[in-house]
Amino acid sequence: MGEIDLYDRLVDLAKRRGFFWPSYEIYGGVAGFYDWGPYGAVLKKNIIDKWRRTFILNHQDFVVELESPVIGPSIVYEASGHVENFTDPIVECLSCGRKFRADHIVEDKLGISTEGLTPEELTKLIREHDIRCPVCGGQLGEVKTFNLLFQTRIGPFEHSLGYVRPELAQGMFVAFKRVYEAMRNKLPLGIAQIGKVGRNEISPRQGLVRLREFTIMEMEFFIDPEEKRCPMLAEKAEVKINILTQEAKKKGEAPKQYSLGEAVEEGVIIHPCLAYWMGVAQEFMESLGVPRENMFFEDKLPEERAHYSSQTFDQLVKVSRWGWIEVAGHSYRGDYDLSRHIKYSGKDLRAHKRLKKPVKRKVRKILINKAAIGKRYRSEAPKVIQLIEKTGLEQVLARIKEEGNIQLEGYEITRDMLFEKEVEETINVKRFVPHVIEPSFGTDRITYVTLEYAVKEKDGRLILSLPWDIAPVKAAVLPLVERDDELRSKARKIFQILTREGIPAIYDDAGSIGRRYARADEIGIPFAVTVDYQTLEDDTLTIRDRDTWRQVRIPSQEVANIIRRAIEENIPPWE
Amino acid sequence: MGEIDLYDRLVDLAKRRGFFWPSYEIYGGVAGFYDWGPYGAVLKKNIIDKWRRTFILNHQDFVVELESPVIGPSIVYEASGHVENFTDPIVECLSCGRKFRADHIVEDKLGISTEGLTPEELTKLIREHDIRCPVCGGQLGEVKTFNLLFQTRIGPFEHSLGYVRPELAQGMFVAFKRVYEAMRNKLPLGIAQIGKVGRNEISPRQGLVRLREFTIMEMEFFIDPEEKRCPMLAEKAEVKINILTQEAKKKGEAPKQYSLGEAVEEGVIIHPCLAYWMGVAQEFMESLGVPRENMFFEDKLPEERAHYSSQTFDQLVKVSRWGWIEVAGHSYRGDYDLSRHIKYSGKDLRAHKRLKKPVKRKVRKILINKAAIGKRYRSEAPKVIQLIEKTGLEQVLARIKEEGNIQLEGYEITRDMLFEKEVEETINVKRFVPHVIEPSFGTDRITYVTLEYAVKEKDGRLILSLPWDIAPVKAAVLPLVERDDELRSKARKIFQILTREGIPAIYDDAGSIGRRYARADEIGIPFAVTVDYQTLEDDTLTIRDRDTWRQVRIPSQEVANIIRRAIEENIPPWE
Repeated sequence: MGEIDLYDRLVDLAKRRGFFWPSYEIYGGVAGFYDWGPYGAVLKKNIIDKWRRTFILNHQDFVVELESPVIGPSIVYEASGHVENFTDPIVECLSCGRKFRADHIVEDKLGISTEGLTPEELTKLIREHDIRCPVCGGQLGEVKTFNLLFQTRIGPFEHSLGYVRPELAQGMFVAFKRVYEAMRNKLPLGIAQIGKVGRNEISPRQGLVRLREFTIMEMEFFIDPEEKRCPMLAEKAEVKINILTQEAKKKGEAPKQYSLGEAVEEGVIIHPCLAYWMGVAQEFMESLGVPRENMFFEDKLPEERAHYSSQTFDQLVKVSRWGWIEVAGHSYRGDYDLSRHIKYSGKDLRAHKRLKKPVKRKVRKILINKAAIGKRYRSEAPKVIQLIEKTGLEQVLARIKEEGNIQLEGYEITRDMLFEKEVEETINVKRFVPHVIEPSFGTDRITYVTLEYAVKEKDGRLILSLPWDIAPVKAAVLPLVERDDELRSKARKIFQILTREGIPAIYDDAGSIGRRYARADEIGIPFAVTVDYQTLEDDTLTIRDRDTWRQVRIPSQEVANIIRRAIEENIPPWE
Repeated sequence: MGEIDLYDRLVDLAKRRGFFWPSYEIYGGVAGFYDWGPYGAVLKKNIIDKWRRTFILNHQDFVVELESPVIGPSIVYEASGHVENFTDPIVECLSCGRKFRADHIVEDKLGISTEGLTPEELTKLIREHDIRCPVCGGQLGEVKTFNLLFQTRIGPFEHSLGYVRPELAQGMFVAFKRVYEAMRNKLPLGIAQIGKVGRNEISPRQGLVRLREFTIMEMEFFIDPEEKRCPMLAEKAEVKINILTQEAKKKGEAPKQYSLGEAVEEGVIIHPCLAYWMGVAQEFMESLGVPRENMFFEDKLPEERAHYSSQTFDQLVKVSRWGWIEVAGHSYRGDYDLSRHIKYSGKDLRAHKRLKKPVKRKVRKILINKAAIGKRYRSEAPKVIQLIEKTGLEQVLARIKEEGNIQLEGYEITRDMLFEKEVEETINVKRFVPHVIEPSFGTDRITYVTLEYAVKEKDGRLILSLPWDIAPVKAAVLPLVERDDELRSKARKIFQILTREGIPAIYDDAGSIGRRYARADEIGIPFAVTVDYQTLEDDTLTIRDRDTWRQVRIPSQEVANIIRRAIEENIPPWE
């Protein structure tokens, strides 16, 4: 199928058959928002379920799920750095008033990368090259920064700012301590979440690939920073992935194949757990129908990375209209986020571990000389002791050392009332801020990519060859002849059996059987179950495979089992 | 278990074990936002899956799913009436500056219902009874209205207002035509959606029961308003539900039991499809563990209903701390929403149907006299005909009738170039605005209710007797003795088998077996699978039921099947 029209044909099919379309169409649409229609919503849900199975359930010993709110108070996004850093450069046309991504305008015009340039530098480039408004040709103003957070207010007070989360991660960081404790203080601990985020893009124009609101599937994988191994990697060490290293990129070279084990040994991937999850991520995308050769991992340059990251790989997949697009990011976030939240909240969010060898150390302790206080204050001694404790022994002693005897609420405190002693302490537990590895997936892009890799042309018509396990509808039940009541009644019964068994199916008796097969193929239904005259004699059905158009006869009471086996165990009906 | 402390003990368990807790705790929390922790998130997901199965999959012939965005442009919520009507009365203390729900303050003080009172009337009551600030005793200001929509801006322009959706419904109405066409123009058509909504409550203070952000499960069920029957109701006509009618409510009577069939016949429920979905809704709540006698449906008075509704039943469930709370609403929305969107968008969102008997009617048609035009304009005639058609025959004729001969781009058009004719037309298709029945469920409340109905006390400790199919973890795998390596190794193997089979499970070897059973019971794990010394001899395991504490021995290779059978078919391990 020609690459040029694939996108348009898929978009047409998607609208016609109910996969996706721009939201708010009746009001002219709003850029960056898409609806998932009946089949699209279920396809997306099936992809989410598969991710959940792959990343959470398969690792249920140490990965759990969390659901935190979409809207968050300002302080969270001040701590995370988003209020300060989550911006794009924007420029306004002084003639028509349109606003544009300043970096895109410069890149389009000059064909250079603008990564890391400041607004001032962008303005300078615009002036030097007399770059104009791409719509009306008018003069452009100064480049400013535009914050991409959707801002709102929480409650009735003007100053209570809130934001729509731009990523899921902060929900996991803010709740880390609760989850860590509920999961009984063990590391590694993966906290996964699937949910909506908002990014108020300046002028998104790439359909499902650049949305203002989308669903992320993400995990924050908390590790002990002293733990440099990743036992799980052993089973994937031989898995090959394509990596574009920073060096290769600077030299203009292509991605190179590494085994995950090699990539870790050679320091291309800075942590084995990061490598492990990249391997899982590749397998996940392969299971949706994207071949390995159409995928690579790009090590982002320091100036391309988010403010929190010390290594980030974008996972890229090739699509027809947009070339290479990012479907996931794999970041080593270090202790950036937890440390920021510790600082901003004043709460101790550290993890702890028992030391294998307890450490002994000498510490100076300040103690109260109760005898001295008793002698002087008699029955008031307990009150004075409490006063000293409330003020803090460290502080009281420091003041006495500086000022001589001091007064606390009218009581004189003298040097002899406190004494210092060196004691030996045994430390069994070490407290530390965990490091974090984060695989994060754009669900809507991935669903779109899955559709693009599924769409095939055969005899001039489109077939969605979606993998059986994620296809939104599993079976089309068809009476062979449209107007035969007996066939229809039998087919309805088969449809009802599938419904009762929880198998997503459609019943279709409108039009010639050929048209109905074609319709089912366009929706990506793996199996067409046809009731014909032989069915009425011997209670067998034909079951037709969407991709090979191969047909086999099966006993009608076997239909649910055969389809379930195909979906769950990938065993074809003819085996 | 005493009703008074149940709530507190459940909340304590929820935090400790990872079900739910207030969001943003480390920053002091933000009222109206809750996190679902590891077990809570999965419980909620399981309840959502059950709803999906009950409302969508079981009705897959005519109910489909949709996913529309959380954020929408202003015009949508102007059309829906929310910008104007989605408000609460608010009053500010002139001393301390706190803001309150004015109606709640008046209700708390005077013990009367304030339903339907205007801000002016509320202000008057506050003045007459000298109602003061409940916190500082200061004087209260004027009562105003406060809009509960979370407002934001879409894109970089100040005037592009957007809102966080306060309900899912508008997404379905705006996309109705697309879905209707993709589903091949059939009614009834249910469009269901599950997703987040935001309501910027003034001062929510009821934990999970009054949230500013929550998940709704909702269906808009589109019907032909001329279709007064509901074939599905037949199978549920005998189902009994408790209804508090408007009349009974006014008289202060209790809810009364009706069969769904009776309720429809007596006009208590205005449409049989509304009754059908109420029946499904009751079964759904029963399947989560809420007995029928702790549930009723309240027919809301006109002044209590939302602006779009002509009948609304709240579905109420009794809980320990808050009394009767609404878990779902069942509304007859009529054609309000679609009609509003037709008006605001100018688009035809009507459905259509073939008439059983085509209607013949006489219509006047205007036709072009091509001969007359040909005679005058010769080779230019096609151009002139096109001109007339472009302008519109109706309009051209009207102008000629009024002004005499007219000019169209320099061509004179005379009366004889058009003629009128009466023709008979057969009308086969009727266009109409569908009516809508809406069952809408608050997922977070329902998840909370499910927890409350599950919690039991036994021997002084708490057990979460969650139904097997929705319990977040299905099995706890336990070596009988904590420090026996052989038992632990075998138990790890069993745990890995369950993981591979996709069965949610935990492995636990910390502490005495009694403590571990207790821990599993608190999380609501239905089955504890114990590896003991006999296991090492004959490869059998014990499986212990959470609720009866009954134990049976099973072959270890059967463990996944036995648990799956219990979850999916509700067959206990001992059968």
